[in-house]
Amino acid sequence: MPDLPEGVVAALRAELPERCLLTDPDSMARYAHDEAEWAPHGKPAAVVRASTTEQVATAVRICSRLGVPVVPRGAGTGLSGGANALDGCVLLSLAEMNRIVEINPREQLAVVQPGVVNDDLRAACLEQGAWYPPDPASSPWSTIGGNVATNAGGVCCVKYGVTRDYVLGMEAVVGDGEVVRLGRRTAKGVAGYDLCGLFVGSEGTLGVITEVTVRLLPGVRAPERTVVGYFDTLVAAGEAVAAVAAAGVVPSALELLDKHCLEAVDAWKQMGLSAEAEVLLLGRSDSPGAAGDHEVETLARCFDQAGATWSAVSTDQHEADALFQARRLAYPALERLGPLLTEDVCVPRAAVPEMLARIEASARRHDTHIANIAHAGDGNLHPLIITAAGDEEAKLRAQRAFDDIVDDAIALGGTVTGEHGVGLLKRRGLHAELSPAVVGMHHAVKNALDPRGIFNPGKVFGDPGS
Amino acid sequence: MPDLPEGVVAALRAELPERCLLTDPDSMARYAHDEAEWAPHGKPAAVVRASTTEQVATAVRICSRLGVPVVPRGAGTGLSGGANALDGCVLLSLAEMNRIVEINPREQLAVVQPGVVNDDLRAACLEQGAWYPPDPASSPWSTIGGNVATNAGGVCCVKYGVTRDYVLGMEAVVGDGEVVRLGRRTAKGVAGYDLCGLFVGSEGTLGVITEVTVRLLPGVRAPERTVVGYFDTLVAAGEAVAAVAAAGVVPSALELLDKHCLEAVDAWKQMGLSAEAEVLLLGRSDSPGAAGDHEVETLARCFDQAGATWSAVSTDQHEADALFQARRLAYPALERLGPLLTEDVCVPRAAVPEMLARIEASARRHDTHIANIAHAGDGNLHPLIITAAGDEEAKLRAQRAFDDIVDDAIALGGTVTGEHGVGLLKRRGLHAELSPAVVGMHHAVKNALDPRGIFNPGKVFGDPGS
Repeated sequence: MPDLPEGVVAALRAELPERCLLTDPDSMARYAHDEAEWAPHGKPAAVVRASTTEQVATAVRICSRLGVPVVPRGAGTGLSGGANALDGCVLLSLAEMNRIVEINPREQLAVVQPGVVNDDLRAACLEQGAWYPPDPASSPWSTIGGNVATNAGGVCCVKYGVTRDYVLGMEAVVGDGEVVRLGRRTAKGVAGYDLCGLFVGSEGTLGVITEVTVRLLPGVRAPERTVVGYFDTLVAAGEAVAAVAAAGVVPSALELLDKHCLEAVDAWKQMGLSAEAEVLLLGRSDSPGAAGDHEVETLARCFDQAGATWSAVSTDQHEADALFQARRLAYPALERLGPLLTEDVCVPRAAVPEMLARIEASARRHDTHIANIAHAGDGNLHPLIITAAGDEEAKLRAQRAFDDIVDDAIALGGTVTGEHGVGLLKRRGLHAELSPAVVGMHHAVKNALDPRGIFNPGKVFGDPGS
Repeated sequence: MPDLPEGVVAALRAELPERCLLTDPDSMARYAHDEAEWAPHGKPAAVVRASTTEQVATAVRICSRLGVPVVPRGAGTGLSGGANALDGCVLLSLAEMNRIVEINPREQLAVVQPGVVNDDLRAACLEQGAWYPPDPASSPWSTIGGNVATNAGGVCCVKYGVTRDYVLGMEAVVGDGEVVRLGRRTAKGVAGYDLCGLFVGSEGTLGVITEVTVRLLPGVRAPERTVVGYFDTLVAAGEAVAAVAAAGVVPSALELLDKHCLEAVDAWKQMGLSAEAEVLLLGRSDSPGAAGDHEVETLARCFDQAGATWSAVSTDQHEADALFQARRLAYPALERLGPLLTEDVCVPRAAVPEMLARIEASARRHDTHIANIAHAGDGNLHPLIITAAGDEEAKLRAQRAFDDIVDDAIALGGTVTGEHGVGLLKRRGLHAELSPAVVGMHHAVKNALDPRGIFNPGKVFGDPGS
């Protein structure tokens, strides 16, 4: 049992600067949950806004001694409830640890504090001729620490991989407050277990990440060319995605938006996108020269053969950028319409049409409204189940659709979460996806590295009924 | 304490087909060690040559019950003693589990048994228009299971990454003989801890890998162009490597061979390579079109500015291939000259010249003969310490040079092993590189997943004095 909140608050107050600590309910409420509107959250005993590793270590040491849960948090843009407060926990915000410590194009790496915003890191790297690829849709707001904790994906992952592919090393506060360095700064290294990789995607359940060393690529890239396709149906667009995979082409982006998304963006930003198509596919190639020519031609041919009502290689960079901007805005635009229940399933590329058909069937079966955005080239689909605020009956139907989609993804050889993480919302899905023996390995690793059970307990592989 | 060998042999005999089991000392001797000639090895109680996952599970179940160590082994091409027998262990050979289960270019993946030879997988993938990049120098002989267990690197890693970057999922036998599936088949996935990644590079200490799902790239690549540079000194060649990194170019290979290597290859294969240079640098670019032109020009300019006595973009593909063939043959060619003590340090790219200078200083200080080959573009150096067979005094001096090189690599911000693994030879180095807290995390994870302590015990982070 956690100690009484007063005990932990007094202990934190005794050892941390006053300005680190928030304890009044109104201030704490802003930190109590992420953007997963459907996930439950409790009331923290205190919010610690750390600005140094030492402060993190102090907070962890106190929580360990008193048996109080520690929930780490970045910008709170998560979509699974992973950063949601537990009753009586210490909510540890890393947002103020936002210094870029080093950008080193020669060694192709950067060292950053966890609170650095993704877009800020990319911009700073580009100034020095280097590129940090992972680009979740939340990149203007989300932090590297949160990206690492959830192993965030993004638009360019289809060619360039996810966050985990760019994490070389980290500093973390573990156990009873020890500060450790995991991973490395060199291009290669196999000295011991890949504990750094184990922490990537562990959603705060193994410790608190206080610094990250990321790998960079050269900043000079060929200009991207965009192929736009309009489709009458989701399934036809899905067939185009499967055809691109079958053609052996790896685009630098392959995104899908349906009319619900386009309408929501139009309603917010008056971009006038929704008149043309039921479903929009956006492909990109950044391969230079003849290779790029081949890729954009193949993308257009795949779109046409799958039944695109219109397709073109965009010659207008502004227009192309506007379409990708719409992709990025789709989620916040839809959020304006009511509580969103966000899916994140990932299926084999060949199964994309079938999965999209099943999502539509789920929507019909449960009389719900589902918008679709997708990192389609990865098979990573984000059906967004929309309900009117306050309609509890609709919420129940939405939850049933959500559960069906999770089960369909597993049945098609997919996973319940491609890039958002399990948090609270996908715990039932995780238990459906992983065998009991593998869940048992999770508990064993968790107990080994967090014997006091203080780090974000109950998340990810905890009891979904709790 | 292990049970008496007779007990485990009788139990294995009762449950496994006769042809799986070797128990006579001469037959077992061939399986008792890898290619790390300096690493000690014991005598196994039995060798199990498994041909199915069920046989592996049976062997593990028996060993778990009797507390007998299990040492998994592929082709035995390891260079750190990771697959060396422990006294009374069951040596579990996976070499006969060598079936390619699936090659799926559409999903960009292949499913293979652990005994598939690296080059065989690459060739089979190319027939289907896909490419499996990781290419350790041992690729004609080493197996995917061993590559995964050690997180093997290779020549193209400098641009395309190491084995771990290509492992999506696996089947493994863990614990008391349970068969589990870790990882996934989809492009992305974050459902739970990356236990699959944790097993990559774990050198058989967490379980036995019985199937691997690897990621593939498209098989169509631009032809590689080779830039050759001759240098008078190791340090000048190292300066060229650092200059390439500083220029922001990522070659598809950047390999270094010194005259000792070239002479050894000449002595074996009469290739006539050693007359021209003290040190050879081989750079490659596989970028198409103008990007490739820029890369080869930059490589040549960096070579020249660092003091190359000669450099050229090779126009003769046969000649270029012969030079890379020499790189691949260097290790076995040197092995013919006497017992090799193989280093595998990896340092920051900017530190390559200094590290090469320190290696030369170590050779002088300890009166040893050191040949150098290197994945220089990664900062991954392989000084090879050569002694005459039977010269025990020279062996002691070689060991001192080995220890100094390890310490120098750590002092320069590097790691004690870039791609070979820790096995037995680098255990002292691992303890020097990792903090006690991080070593403690290794023990905790090991104990959590292998509570009986049967999987390759004592390797990697075990007591180096044992």
